Amino acid sequence: MPTHATVADLGERAIIDRIRARVPAAPAWVTVGIGDDAAVVEPERNALAVFTTDALVEGVHFDLAFTPPDAVGHKALAVNLSDLAAMGATPRAALLSLAVPPGLAVQDLDAVVEGMLALAARHRTALIGGNVARSPGPLVVDVTAIGAVRRRRILMRAGARPGDGIFVSGWVGASAAGLSSCRMRAMRGTSDSPPGGSCEARFLRPEPRVRLGQLLGRTRAATACIDLSDGLAEGLRQLALASEIGVLIEAEMLPIDDDTRRWFSDRGEDAVAAACAGGEDYELLFTVSPRRLRALTAVLRLTGELPCTRIGVVKRDRALVVRRAGHDETLPEGYAHFR
Amino acid sequence: MPTHATVADLGERAIIDRIRARVPAAPAWVTVGIGDDAAVVEPERNALAVFTTDALVEGVHFDLAFTPPDAVGHKALAVNLSDLAAMGATPRAALLSLAVPPGLAVQDLDAVVEGMLALAARHRTALIGGNVARSPGPLVVDVTAIGAVRRRRILMRAGARPGDGIFVSGWVGASAAGLSSCRMRAMRGTSDSPPGGSCEARFLRPEPRVRLGQLLGRTRAATACIDLSDGLAEGLRQLALASEIGVLIEAEMLPIDDDTRRWFSDRGEDAVAAACAGGEDYELLFTVSPRRLRALTAVLRLTGELPCTRIGVVKRDRALVVRRAGHDETLPEGYAHFR
Repeated sequence: MPTHATVADLGERAIIDRIRARVPAAPAWVTVGIGDDAAVVEPERNALAVFTTDALVEGVHFDLAFTPPDAVGHKALAVNLSDLAAMGATPRAALLSLAVPPGLAVQDLDAVVEGMLALAARHRTALIGGNVARSPGPLVVDVTAIGAVRRRRILMRAGARPGDGIFVSGWVGASAAGLSSCRMRAMRGTSDSPPGGSCEARFLRPEPRVRLGQLLGRTRAATACIDLSDGLAEGLRQLALASEIGVLIEAEMLPIDDDTRRWFSDRGEDAVAAACAGGEDYELLFTVSPRRLRALTAVLRLTGELPCTRIGVVKRDRALVVRRAGHDETLPEGYAHFR
Repeated sequence: MPTHATVADLGERAIIDRIRARVPAAPAWVTVGIGDDAAVVEPERNALAVFTTDALVEGVHFDLAFTPPDAVGHKALAVNLSDLAAMGATPRAALLSLAVPPGLAVQDLDAVVEGMLALAARHRTALIGGNVARSPGPLVVDVTAIGAVRRRRILMRAGARPGDGIFVSGWVGASAAGLSSCRMRAMRGTSDSPPGGSCEARFLRPEPRVRLGQLLGRTRAATACIDLSDGLAEGLRQLALASEIGVLIEAEMLPIDDDTRRWFSDRGEDAVAAACAGGEDYELLFTVSPRRLRALTAVLRLTGELPCTRIGVVKRDRALVVRRAGHDETLPEGYAHFR
């Protein structure tokens, strides 16, 4: 295959064969895998099935000018595993639906698939089916993820109660800084240089908090949970809406790492506002009742290097407030895709 | 809402709210429905789970110049239910992932969703989740369908044996004639006239053969089954490949209805070749062993007005042959999306 070959040179059947050749052998609970009209799977015993779907669209969620194609594949699965994690579920399988422009290089398509499969392997997620269509416009990578969760371990957005502590995993704002940094590199025409910096890595290859979600569900440590796809502010808003509560966030407590602070301060931007508004952190935002803080401590011993930071408290009054240097402000708006 | 409003006027959250408002109450086995990070569902007892995903892309699979938006929604679900039917599965749920151009009229988006939900209601399929993204290019309607099937009732592409009869449900070629007819109307600038003719209806709103698939699985009447998405020839090719057999098709037996024959003959085209090559029939192609013909008769009594026609026989020799007026020819190629 010459390196400049495009998917138009291959045809649909050959593209599917190429993808299948990269997929490892299916686990025993996959009764019918890739290659028939549909996949057939044994349900997990004593568990409910969990489903989510999310798409990455070229020109909206990624730009091939500064996104390595394997990062597109990684992220398309990661955003879905993040949704499963927010329910306390264990990933089991995924379906991949691609809309592919005919001019896409075959090696880029291979890299998209390989990026997805590498993350899938780390989370024991079997690719059991999919679909390849031609796109007259952008590359669209649509993933459906399938997980399992026991009934009593389901985490939902509803359930937070006044007095619960509000926690967030990892760091916020890094992905927004990373996007900004990637864009700047691309504009400078240095798009071929390897992406560097912790912020860019967080933007390009977010790590879904699967283990944390499972542990929060298993231990019943969290009263409510959501994943941060559209920014901390939007996550808080959705959690508050579902739980019918308000929040008081301490700006000083937000886990914003040094690289992120430096990125925003170097540009005269407010790191706290950027971290609230910036999307795509794919961290878990969750609430813990004061009586369950011990369970949370046990969880955190098991999640290794991933920190969870208390950033505020759930309030009965339904306002969304950030306290900063003694001043209370209303939470800024989150990221909105159509505006 | 003014009739000329576009999705860009609404924003993502309002679009999702609009879709949710149209979705009927979820059945009791949906533990968590639309509105959380993921959907949670009780598995069907004593059954395996069946998954398929397929997307319709504007400009490739449909053209809004001659496709009513409700037909787009209908068909996006229909092609997936057709895949479930080909496995002998009963549909249970669906996920809808939309990539929407900001300029799409809100009423067109509403119609897409309503077209999908109307078909879903007829097949007791619950819309349990989804995703809305912006598209800088075409409208992409990606559906994942979830079904259930008992282990001994699974229909697969593999399983056809020499001597089995080859059957197809309904009619072939009508969808290809319908596409051609729709295109011609659009070119003539009569795109506002209501679509007419049985062929156009078959192209615009294919009826997935869900009941037939269930019955073929339940009675073990079929040894192999596939749905016709890319044409009869391609369906036969895939079935033959999976079952490691050949086929002998009798051209005179192909169920081509009068409207379809007339359409092709009026244009000097060969209806048999068109029916073999034309895609999107969404009929079931299946094989029946001579010993199970009685079971098939029982099935056909239950499928009402839907005929199933014997079109040929499975051969040990792996050639794909059409016999026509005493002459044997090799099967023509099916529809290929990237060529």
